[in-house]
Amino acid sequence: MTAPERSIDDLVAATTIAGERWAATESGERRQILHAVADALDAAADHLIPIAQDESHLPRPRLTGELTRTTFQIRLLADAAAAGEHLDVRIDHADPQWPMGAPRPDLRRTSVPVGPVLVFGASNFPFAFSTAGGDTASALAAGCPVIYKAHHGHPALSDATATVVNDALDTAGAPAGLFSTIHSEADGRAVLAHPDLKAAAFTGGIPGGRALFDIAQARPEPIPFYGELGSVNPVFVTESAASARAQEIVDGFLGSFTLGQGQFCTKPGILLVPADSAIPDLLRDAALPPGHALLNAGIARGHSKVRDGLTGHPGVRLLTGGGPETDPPAPTLLATDSATLITGFDDLVVECFGPTALVVTYADTSDLLRIARRLHGQLTATLVAEPDDAIVGPLTTILTRKAGRILWNQWPTGVSATYAQQHGGPYPASTTPGTTSVGTAALSRFVRAVAWQGFPQQLLPGELRDDQSVPAPRRVNGVHDPDTLR
Amino acid sequence: MTAPERSIDDLVAATTIAGERWAATESGERRQILHAVADALDAAADHLIPIAQDESHLPRPRLTGELTRTTFQIRLLADAAAAGEHLDVRIDHADPQWPMGAPRPDLRRTSVPVGPVLVFGASNFPFAFSTAGGDTASALAAGCPVIYKAHHGHPALSDATATVVNDALDTAGAPAGLFSTIHSEADGRAVLAHPDLKAAAFTGGIPGGRALFDIAQARPEPIPFYGELGSVNPVFVTESAASARAQEIVDGFLGSFTLGQGQFCTKPGILLVPADSAIPDLLRDAALPPGHALLNAGIARGHSKVRDGLTGHPGVRLLTGGGPETDPPAPTLLATDSATLITGFDDLVVECFGPTALVVTYADTSDLLRIARRLHGQLTATLVAEPDDAIVGPLTTILTRKAGRILWNQWPTGVSATYAQQHGGPYPASTTPGTTSVGTAALSRFVRAVAWQGFPQQLLPGELRDDQSVPAPRRVNGVHDPDTLR
Repeated sequence: MTAPERSIDDLVAATTIAGERWAATESGERRQILHAVADALDAAADHLIPIAQDESHLPRPRLTGELTRTTFQIRLLADAAAAGEHLDVRIDHADPQWPMGAPRPDLRRTSVPVGPVLVFGASNFPFAFSTAGGDTASALAAGCPVIYKAHHGHPALSDATATVVNDALDTAGAPAGLFSTIHSEADGRAVLAHPDLKAAAFTGGIPGGRALFDIAQARPEPIPFYGELGSVNPVFVTESAASARAQEIVDGFLGSFTLGQGQFCTKPGILLVPADSAIPDLLRDAALPPGHALLNAGIARGHSKVRDGLTGHPGVRLLTGGGPETDPPAPTLLATDSATLITGFDDLVVECFGPTALVVTYADTSDLLRIARRLHGQLTATLVAEPDDAIVGPLTTILTRKAGRILWNQWPTGVSATYAQQHGGPYPASTTPGTTSVGTAALSRFVRAVAWQGFPQQLLPGELRDDQSVPAPRRVNGVHDPDTLR
Repeated sequence: MTAPERSIDDLVAATTIAGERWAATESGERRQILHAVADALDAAADHLIPIAQDESHLPRPRLTGELTRTTFQIRLLADAAAAGEHLDVRIDHADPQWPMGAPRPDLRRTSVPVGPVLVFGASNFPFAFSTAGGDTASALAAGCPVIYKAHHGHPALSDATATVVNDALDTAGAPAGLFSTIHSEADGRAVLAHPDLKAAAFTGGIPGGRALFDIAQARPEPIPFYGELGSVNPVFVTESAASARAQEIVDGFLGSFTLGQGQFCTKPGILLVPADSAIPDLLRDAALPPGHALLNAGIARGHSKVRDGLTGHPGVRLLTGGGPETDPPAPTLLATDSATLITGFDDLVVECFGPTALVVTYADTSDLLRIARRLHGQLTATLVAEPDDAIVGPLTTILTRKAGRILWNQWPTGVSATYAQQHGGPYPASTTPGTTSVGTAALSRFVRAVAWQGFPQQLLPGELRDDQSVPAPRRVNGVHDPDTLR
């Protein structure tokens, strides 16, 4: 269903009605339907992947892996939602002696789907953060209908994927109108401003993401806008780690910052290394992989602009790699020192989406703390260190204030979809710090808590009844009920 | 510490440093310190309550009860935080066979305090939603420092309470500067806009609350603003309930809408009753309690203005009570019918903070569904019904989309602080739908999730270690660990 066929009002109205039916569908049935969607996408791989290759310039093995990740994620989220983990069920029995000074009524709290969700597709993950990606999957699994704003970088893939999704939903018995696609920026803004929309999710850059966030917050009824807008993902290499395993660190960093041509939101954009270590020279002399076409012309322009800004800074020099002229851009390492970085912080600590990173040498270890304290919000921050480094304790403490995920001697690219994953951090990493767009905790974004006070059993949702009929872990009078846990 | 003594920058800087020390304090020690604060407030009752009486015009028994509620709430939140319920701890062990298509790293997720929180006091709860009220208690219990913006309606009580709080914090060993008070609106806005502030909480009206929300969202780094802005709290009385127990319903409603002179955010502002029931006449002939002075002149002016607006509507008549002239205002019931309400919805379905409510008669039961569908977000919605009323199922379904708490044959005033309470709903009830300002779930507002990837045991927070040293329920590889549950 594309926008020209009917008005935005009609689209949102149909989505709302479908969402009411979807919310009323048993969680076990929603799970089965979403598994059917995942199966259909797997079965359509040979049809979808060539379209993705053509539109995104990403290599086939990467896209095959991304589709596997996408369908795994749909099943993981569907299973977690059916298990009711995200409902945060709490039951308090009436207590006439409650020491607050007034009797406690019978109160039972669970979570309900928020209603229609607008999902903006991302350029760099044509499957995993697009049509049937994590945001769509978590909204559907949580019981919400979805309007998907296709990314202009892969419109044909978006439509082809949506056809597979909608055919699978129809066949499996989902309500008609549960999932729709729009394409134009104007339609995206109109849906975002529509009074019946209840949440939005976005992955992209700061300027566009902030403009959409502002629309969502300026509505007569502001709504949650789960935006992931950018991250530099700094890596802090201590002296002892650099002494012990310089080549290993160099290899790991080169692999991570060039993976997918540097087009990951978790690409390590800044590497802080001891000035007197072997790492700067090893990097300078390293063989960088060849460049590949970036996702689209806009991404290429953005990369050139930020890279040229960095290169033009008087304290920054080219360490190795392509420099400004090549097309497609070759991986590029720039270099500066920590004093320059601290002085020019806001000009130098910027996301350069693409295969460019900045190597920062330091002579004084305490510069690591100074730099960490200045950071804006990050998706990730990485420590490459030895456990008994004195700097590690205070540095970790500061980084937990700045980032959503802290890594130890690993590299930040490759975000596993798991129960404990946190992909999100303080602004601009996320517009809603503390929420995640990857992993099962992503479900919580699309539900809202409701308490039932004094209700008769037969009118309660199944997860709140004494004779529980919907699976969910339950906390009863403040204590987890072990019989309800999986 | 009041604002003229030093600049806002200095205040926020000192608060930030205190907060870093507080966040590093063991959760058990934080619990003990907060219990000491609660004990000190209880011991200061005879000193504080007369000041509260003088400034708020609320009767002594109400204030005594409110202080009991306040200190109970501090202890409840401190205990819940020390038990780690709000940390949502998740541990995923490394899994080379993770079916996503790539090995799963060791990921361990917990929650960290967000940092400095600005709490705006509310006029109508000089203890429970003010200096040491629920917002302050949940922020402190979650590990955050607090700057408290005193409500202009009770400045002396705010300072007296703050002195008790700060003396208790000092004696118990809390970091200096953990809790501060500011008084002016300008200081409140300046702190809200300060880059180092990380969250704010507010309870009050729509115009002021929305203006503050807008400041928080327009910052270069937007921050969570947990605002409770207003609610009409409609009550839906079915025909069978009205037939079965008209007098009981009348008594319950009169008690609830006049409680505290109607100055509760959960006051039932609209009562929908069958036109042919006995209820309208019983209400007309009821003896209403006498009026008392409202909290302050601003509240009185606001009440008069909204009441006069309702009274001036051509479809609204005075049912019983004070009418527009009395001072202090006497409880007032206005009346209209459901057709008029539907036609003039946005003029008539408004919060009238104070002892005025609107009785709406209906002839067609389906008008209840029409009206429910039109509602904006509510803190509460109440069903006064019989379990086998046909309307109850569809009406409950609609109301769960509109309100944070749904009541069955009870009245919405009197919000119990418990594990399952939900005090918050879609906008304007809350600016952040799904969060609560009452009950232990209020803690979650002031923490942010962080994942540790691949960290050595000794560098992990205690709740994430294999040999767990900080209490918290833990989910391990997606399954709750029964040994970690309380």
